[in-house]
Amino acid sequence: MKILLVGASGTVGRAIRQALSRHQILTAGRHSGDLRVDITDSASVSKMFEQAGRLDAIVSATGNLHFGPLSEMSAADFRVGLENKLLGQIDLALTGQHYLNDGGSITLTSGIVSAHPIRHGANATAVNRALEGFAAAAALELTRGQRINVVSPNVLQESWEGFAPYFPGFEAIPAARAALAYVRSVEGIANGQTLTVW
Amino acid sequence: MKILLVGASGTVGRAIRQALSRHQILTAGRHSGDLRVDITDSASVSKMFEQAGRLDAIVSATGNLHFGPLSEMSAADFRVGLENKLLGQIDLALTGQHYLNDGGSITLTSGIVSAHPIRHGANATAVNRALEGFAAAAALELTRGQRINVVSPNVLQESWEGFAPYFPGFEAIPAARAALAYVRSVEGIANGQTLTVW
Ligand SMILES: NC(=O)c1ccc[n+]([C@@H]2O[C@H](COP(=O)([O-])OP(=O)(O)OC[C@H]3O[C@@H](n4cnc5c(N)ncnc54)[C@H](OP(=O)(O)O)[C@@H]3O)[C@@H](O)[C@H]2O)c1
Ligand SMILES: NC(=O)c1ccc[n+]([C@@H]2O[C@H](COP(=O)([O-])OP(=O)(O)OC[C@H]3O[C@@H](n4cnc5c(N)ncnc54)[C@H](OP(=O)(O)O)[C@@H]3O)[C@@H](O)[C@H]2O)c1
Repeated sequence: MKILLVGASGTVGRAIRQALSRHQILTAGRHSGDLRVDITDSASVSKMFEQAGRLDAIVSATGNLHFGPLSEMSAADFRVGLENKLLGQIDLALTGQHYLNDGGSITLTSGIVSAHPIRHGANATAVNRALEGFAAAAALELTRGQRINVVSPNVLQESWEGFAPYFPGFEAIPAARAALAYVRSVEGIANGQTLTVW
Repeated sequence: MKILLVGASGTVGRAIRQALSRHQILTAGRHSGDLRVDITDSASVSKMFEQAGRLDAIVSATGNLHFGPLSEMSAADFRVGLENKLLGQIDLALTGQHYLNDGGSITLTSGIVSAHPIRHGANATAVNRALEGFAAAAALELTRGQRINVVSPNVLQESWEGFAPYFPGFEAIPAARAALAYVRSVEGIANGQTLTVW
């Protein structure tokens, strides 16, 4: 398969790349990769897909969120996650569907905070649930055997050092374990699902 | 209680107003109401709360979405629901928390498409799920006995004429029945919940 992997240089992305290495992978990122893209800029997303050409799978492991106390959160803070992790990834799906071969798949990334809220994480829970809802609904409208799923990983062991204070009692997982869910989405038949890894 | 009702002139809002009529209701809307507000404009939201003063409850029954085929949906289309129904209502919660008395409540509105996707409804499912996720997470950070819930009504009988083609086999409910869930959120003890009415 020819697979576009957005966020390939990241902690999650590197593990996905390894797990899907028997395929042809086109890497993309903001500052690195075969193709450069800013997912918050629609023109940049369109240009990336023009350059990528026809694809069998689109995998996204990228997106920023706002973390901070609810009592200090503003609409502008909240917009960060909406523009970046949410709309950025949804644009990859909306624009990418037109470059996807029959039977191709789209896989986006949410995270455990979707189902297990954490302190300072209201933006993350909202954005992650929106992504999962989008995939559930979009799967029912895709045609030509196309599929869409979301992978929701637990905190990664590789990211634990920075994240530990925000995730008391969470059981960090190896990135390689999270990566399996992306393989399941790309090579399996799951559709409209949230593949949780925890 | 002193209650701010945003979207008071709408189909849902009118029924809520009736159901909560034993309280002091401040109505708000874009073109009507005691207070005028555009929920997509943060400055306007702040100004409304300044004018409203201290509140025992904030109820929102407003918000636009984008409806259209997934195959024709753009990021700009999708942004409609994010800026309006999602971020608009979340701004009412984020800004409103600072005007809420101890023990006060915030009630936002999602809709049945959250749990039951419909054709052309990917934006609605995503936005409604985000609202429900936000409330679930925010409830865990609110202090002083403050609460937040989301009401998710089925299609209303009062709106059926326009909506019927999009909701085959859905069992439309009277707006007065949906309004009960807002009373439950305002006068009861529910917190972080999605109160479904179907
Ligand atoms: N790490 C975890 O423990 C964990 C757990 C659950 C969920 N997640 C989710 O997994 C996703 C990836 O997380 P991560 O920890 O792997 O992040 P990361 O290590 O910071 O990597 C981010 C990747 O995204 C790319 N990127 C950043 N901004 C971009 C933009 N505007 N447009 C296009 N690409 C952009 C970066 O590219 P360049 O390097 O080229 O700039 C990089 O490849 C996020 O959605 C995160 O919420 C992470
Ligand atoms: N109707 C249904 O069957 C149904 C079912 C499930 C969920 N819902 C949800 O319930 C909510 C209300 O729906 P509805 O049918 O009652 O809508 P509606 O009849 O169109 O009423 C909309 C209300 O919101 C106000 N409004 C519109 N834009 C605004 C803005 N930018 N800022 C502030 N106020 C604004 C309007 O004020 P003005 O009149 O002053 O302009 C009006 O009071 C929506 O979120 C909808 O998705 C509706």
